Amino acid sequence: MIIILKDKRKEEDVQDLYDYLGQYKVDIKPIEGTQSTILGLVGDTTKIDMTDILAKEVVADVKRVSEPYKAANRKFHPDDTIVEVGGRKIGGKHFKVIAGPCSVESEEQVIEVAKAVKASGAAFLRGGAFKPRTSPYSFQGLHAEGLELLLKAKAATGLPIVTEIMSLAHLDLFSDVDIIQVGARNMQNFELLKELGHSKKPILLKRGLANTIEEFLMSAEYIMAGGNENVILCERGIRTFETMTRNTLDISAIPVLKHYSHLPVIVDPSHATGIPWLVEPLSQAAIAAGADGLMIEVHNNPKAALCDGAQSLTPAQFDDVMQKVKKLTAVFDREL
Amino acid sequence: MIIILKDKRKEEDVQDLYDYLGQYKVDIKPIEGTQSTILGLVGDTTKIDMTDILAKEVVADVKRVSEPYKAANRKFHPDDTIVEVGGRKIGGKHFKVIAGPCSVESEEQVIEVAKAVKASGAAFLRGGAFKPRTSPYSFQGLHAEGLELLLKAKAATGLPIVTEIMSLAHLDLFSDVDIIQVGARNMQNFELLKELGHSKKPILLKRGLANTIEEFLMSAEYIMAGGNENVILCERGIRTFETMTRNTLDISAIPVLKHYSHLPVIVDPSHATGIPWLVEPLSQAAIAAGADGLMIEVHNNPKAALCDGAQSLTPAQFDDVMQKVKKLTAVFDREL
Amino acid sequence: MIIILKDKRKEEDVQDLYDYLGQYKVDIKPIEGTQSTILGLVGDTTKIDMTDILAKEVVADVKRVSEPYKAANRKFHPDDTIVEVGGRKIGGKHFKVIAGPCSVESEEQVIEVAKAVKASGAAFLRGGAFKPRTSPYSFQGLHAEGLELLLKAKAATGLPIVTEIMSLAHLDLFSDVDIIQVGARNMQNFELLKELGHSKKPILLKRGLANTIEEFLMSAEYIMAGGNENVILCERGIRTFETMTRNTLDISAIPVLKHYSHLPVIVDPSHATGIPWLVEPLSQAAIAAGADGLMIEVHNNPKAALCDGAQSLTPAQFDDVMQKVKKLTAVFDREL
Amino acid sequence: MIIILKDKRKEEDVQDLYDYLGQYKVDIKPIEGTQSTILGLVGDTTKIDMTDILAKEVVADVKRVSEPYKAANRKFHPDDTIVEVGGRKIGGKHFKVIAGPCSVESEEQVIEVAKAVKASGAAFLRGGAFKPRTSPYSFQGLHAEGLELLLKAKAATGLPIVTEIMSLAHLDLFSDVDIIQVGARNMQNFELLKELGHSKKPILLKRGLANTIEEFLMSAEYIMAGGNENVILCERGIRTFETMTRNTLDISAIPVLKHYSHLPVIVDPSHATGIPWLVEPLSQAAIAAGADGLMIEVHNNPKAALCDGAQSLTPAQFDDVMQKVKKLTAVFDREL
Repeated sequence: MIIILKDKRKEEDVQDLYDYLGQYKVDIKPIEGTQSTILGLVGDTTKIDMTDILAKEVVADVKRVSEPYKAANRKFHPDDTIVEVGGRKIGGKHFKVIAGPCSVESEEQVIEVAKAVKASGAAFLRGGAFKPRTSPYSFQGLHAEGLELLLKAKAATGLPIVTEIMSLAHLDLFSDVDIIQVGARNMQNFELLKELGHSKKPILLKRGLANTIEEFLMSAEYIMAGGNENVILCERGIRTFETMTRNTLDISAIPVLKHYSHLPVIVDPSHATGIPWLVEPLSQAAIAAGADGLMIEVHNNPKAALCDGAQSLTPAQFDDVMQKVKKLTAVFDREL
Repeated sequence: MIIILKDKRKEEDVQDLYDYLGQYKVDIKPIEGTQSTILGLVGDTTKIDMTDILAKEVVADVKRVSEPYKAANRKFHPDDTIVEVGGRKIGGKHFKVIAGPCSVESEEQVIEVAKAVKASGAAFLRGGAFKPRTSPYSFQGLHAEGLELLLKAKAATGLPIVTEIMSLAHLDLFSDVDIIQVGARNMQNFELLKELGHSKKPILLKRGLANTIEEFLMSAEYIMAGGNENVILCERGIRTFETMTRNTLDISAIPVLKHYSHLPVIVDPSHATGIPWLVEPLSQAAIAAGADGLMIEVHNNPKAALCDGAQSLTPAQFDDVMQKVKKLTAVFDREL
Repeated sequence: MIIILKDKRKEEDVQDLYDYLGQYKVDIKPIEGTQSTILGLVGDTTKIDMTDILAKEVVADVKRVSEPYKAANRKFHPDDTIVEVGGRKIGGKHFKVIAGPCSVESEEQVIEVAKAVKASGAAFLRGGAFKPRTSPYSFQGLHAEGLELLLKAKAATGLPIVTEIMSLAHLDLFSDVDIIQVGARNMQNFELLKELGHSKKPILLKRGLANTIEEFLMSAEYIMAGGNENVILCERGIRTFETMTRNTLDISAIPVLKHYSHLPVIVDPSHATGIPWLVEPLSQAAIAAGADGLMIEVHNNPKAALCDGAQSLTPAQFDDVMQKVKKLTAVFDREL
Repeated sequence: MIIILKDKRKEEDVQDLYDYLGQYKVDIKPIEGTQSTILGLVGDTTKIDMTDILAKEVVADVKRVSEPYKAANRKFHPDDTIVEVGGRKIGGKHFKVIAGPCSVESEEQVIEVAKAVKASGAAFLRGGAFKPRTSPYSFQGLHAEGLELLLKAKAATGLPIVTEIMSLAHLDLFSDVDIIQVGARNMQNFELLKELGHSKKPILLKRGLANTIEEFLMSAEYIMAGGNENVILCERGIRTFETMTRNTLDISAIPVLKHYSHLPVIVDPSHATGIPWLVEPLSQAAIAAGADGLMIEVHNNPKAALCDGAQSLTPAQFDDVMQKVKKLTAVFDREL
């Protein structure tokens, strides 16, 4: 960590800073410049809060030299983490596709979709029982009943299930869920993250709409600091000025996340743009950029979907996309 | 609501759309253009989900003509809502300042700050007991003990207290809190909003870092739809490309929110930029733009603060700002 | 075009709007709603300026139904445009790589790089003679001398050259340049675009840092409206809140641009992030998303580069990337 | 300037960096950390390009300690710059309002508006003769004829005139213009800025839609480096994700610009949001935040305006705004 001192400063404020830093057992190496003085901190600075330092009277600016995350950091864990669920692996050589409807609507619907996506090559079934909707007047999901229907679809197809949790109050209902999803709007719901850190279940953590890659990794760190190292990161588009797509898929986030972290990274091309005909090119781009998996919305009857039907693929469209996915993952030596 | 149909379409898909719209009891008025056909929907379209319509095979685009929020809409509630707490009013002619430390750290600290901000003219004491921190390794607040210290400060000064809730699991602890704050990161934690809708306590709802004004009003609508109409909106800066300030204060949001909604709107100039010397000019700008109040961070010893000290004012600096606030609110005939 | 009238309106203002629209020879089809009235305009609305309509007293909102660009619109030109330069084709089945140094620095440098990139499979040489630099104190390019050195490199290798124009005043100097580049900062330098519309040379138009896809196509329209249809679009990253990469590559822009326009679309992975180790994954992603080419910075000695060396590849690194490019373009049946 | 070296490095690469830095006559002070080594550069680092340093094999990151601009920097010019034009002053105690139509349309129009805005208290007349329009099919301004009409309005009212230049090719036509405006889209048209640096005329430089405050000051530096120190900065809204206003007025930019620079700062509330009823609250906010002036669009007949009529005020509305401006500038002891 580097601390830049103000040009005009009182000696007592400098002493105050040194006293404060005393508690952290770091060596302080000063450089006197013509205009400014810089302090280099040598030692473990992970626990030092940059905003605390910035608040000191004498400090002009602060810069971290090393990353503030540890458990999620590839430096301390060079090998790829491989998350294994029900005999299926994500990460390393293993590429997996998660597919299913935005929201679970009926037994018939979810089982039909589950069978279809399995036949096309999906490894996991997704489906929302608790749905975060912008409007309180929109369909909010079937809740507990939705979870039961997902389990029936799992029984019928053998596909492990992925579904979103929106509140700690519902945690007990998720005991038979295979992967618990934390949605973009809850990426910094830290109380939820902490509690999931005490779970043993794999967590699919979606990047918040306006969260940086560093904040994303810090949220993974919240879960991992609690002891749960089975975290899958999911890039799903960020909010920008562009309006032609609902969000902007940050394709660079894939190699950047994999560079700084050992966790698997998947991509949700459906939510990233909200446009079904973009799912195919963006799925291909994600594979080519190094993603470890995809999460795609599929509905047996998109035009009658109760939620986000506009972005869902039909089973036939999904099957087309999967043909391309199979071809391209083979080129990159990924196991589907 | 206006629906634009695709140029090339099958008659059966048009019929399918008409059938779907049948359930909503709206009149459908078609306009045949040379290139496209438009349907105008006449009647109450609040319950119709635009994404559902977009999912129909035949639909090219959809546009709302009226706002999707009702309870928060000034159209149906032309007069300003005035929220009253412990004999203090916010909204209409009434302008109020909420001040206090980012986080409650000790009895001595919070009582000292409470006395100071009261002496300078603040009407409410703020202080965090549960703190949302990006890093799991940062100070997370004193939790229940912090709430007790706030109540002691209230007893000592008579100032009603405002503090943030981070989880429904803590709701019981907030029974003596005067205004419950929902932080920016939880603006779309819909389960939390719904539950607070069943409370009778005033809710201070902060705008999410990357949420639009319409989404902000829809989150207020979540609370109001549950029966709680005491919602105070708080603009606290949005995330943009600019890096010189931590966030970008969206000053236009104040008059825009007050145009479309009857709810009081306050501004948090401390979080908006993270720079203490900007609190004064931004507080003045907020008043001049029509805000109903301010929320300002004050710490008796910013350089030793456990959280966000960098942006806190000292009591003396806060007193200077309050002199300007008093002068300017008088110019605009606002009662402090 | 759809015009939404205000709820409360005077008959004379409605008449005023009708009079104004009279000059455009469009049919006006009104729909009377319970709360609002909508006018649908039928006919050619390309010349109607939405902001003019919005200024009318009686107008609440306006929405276009058809795109405001014509020459660049795939609707009126369904086949892919193939730009041909010196026997080399870009667009349709043809994929091309443009490579070279950020700025031309010396004869030795540019010829050495030109030979290297040609050997690795690049089809065009890029190099800056006029450099847009944020600081007036940074190296601004060799200007006319730089153009001469590029021509020497062309003579030595046969590679056609691509270089940026920064001012109309320099246009005469560009007579032997093969493709004239318009940089991101000049994407809306409309006087420059108009003049280039009268040229016969292919124009490589880079997307502005904060310009929407629609604005990008409107800038292409400026060039095409002047008679020059040889426009190549280049996505090079947009400005967002993310700071880990210099810009955010908008990968979705590739399929979206190709959906709405017939013009070839290439990607500049070097400028998109500013990080050399991201060039490979982003080049692959661009191909997989349907791009027609790449523009990559290569420097024989990046650490001594006078400009943007940080993001340049060495010839050896570029050769590695080209091996991947060759493999992947073959998978997608593109001719390199 | 601080340079952070990579953890794993070759001694020859370190030597290479030292050799490179040798040309700049700075002292290099190394700090050896446990994980990384930091170099502090002591001396004048203004000429050192950060991207060049970043390109060195051995460099992990670079951070500037001092600002990269000099002429525009308040550190080296503590007093407010006051720009004087035709006996009118902007900056310091002096607050000025510039008003007029988006585009000059006819002699009658511009003279009528000029008389009206003068009567209400405007000090300068603005009007566009060359108009940057997104679409090539929109009205592009009256060009030379428009400039003549502005001069007639100046003759009729005595108001100095402000108008935008779009190309160096038109510079001769601007010899009688009082203040030359550089529009947002040309903020980084560096060739234009350089040439204007050789002019003696005051330059009104608008912030680009997606340019940072630092880039804004660097563009001012381009003009000032040429010898022209009469630069007025204009904040006019930046591009963000919010869609309810056309742009987002960055109100914090006013005090931040005035903190780091001595140049006068004005605000354009018309372009900042595109909504006429926001001009009054935003004008007031700008004054309260410390702005030195306003630029407001006024049209005698907004509903017939050929350009951006939607955001223009009528002379009567402008007069109302000026009453508020007069009242508030008096509160802040500014001379109108």
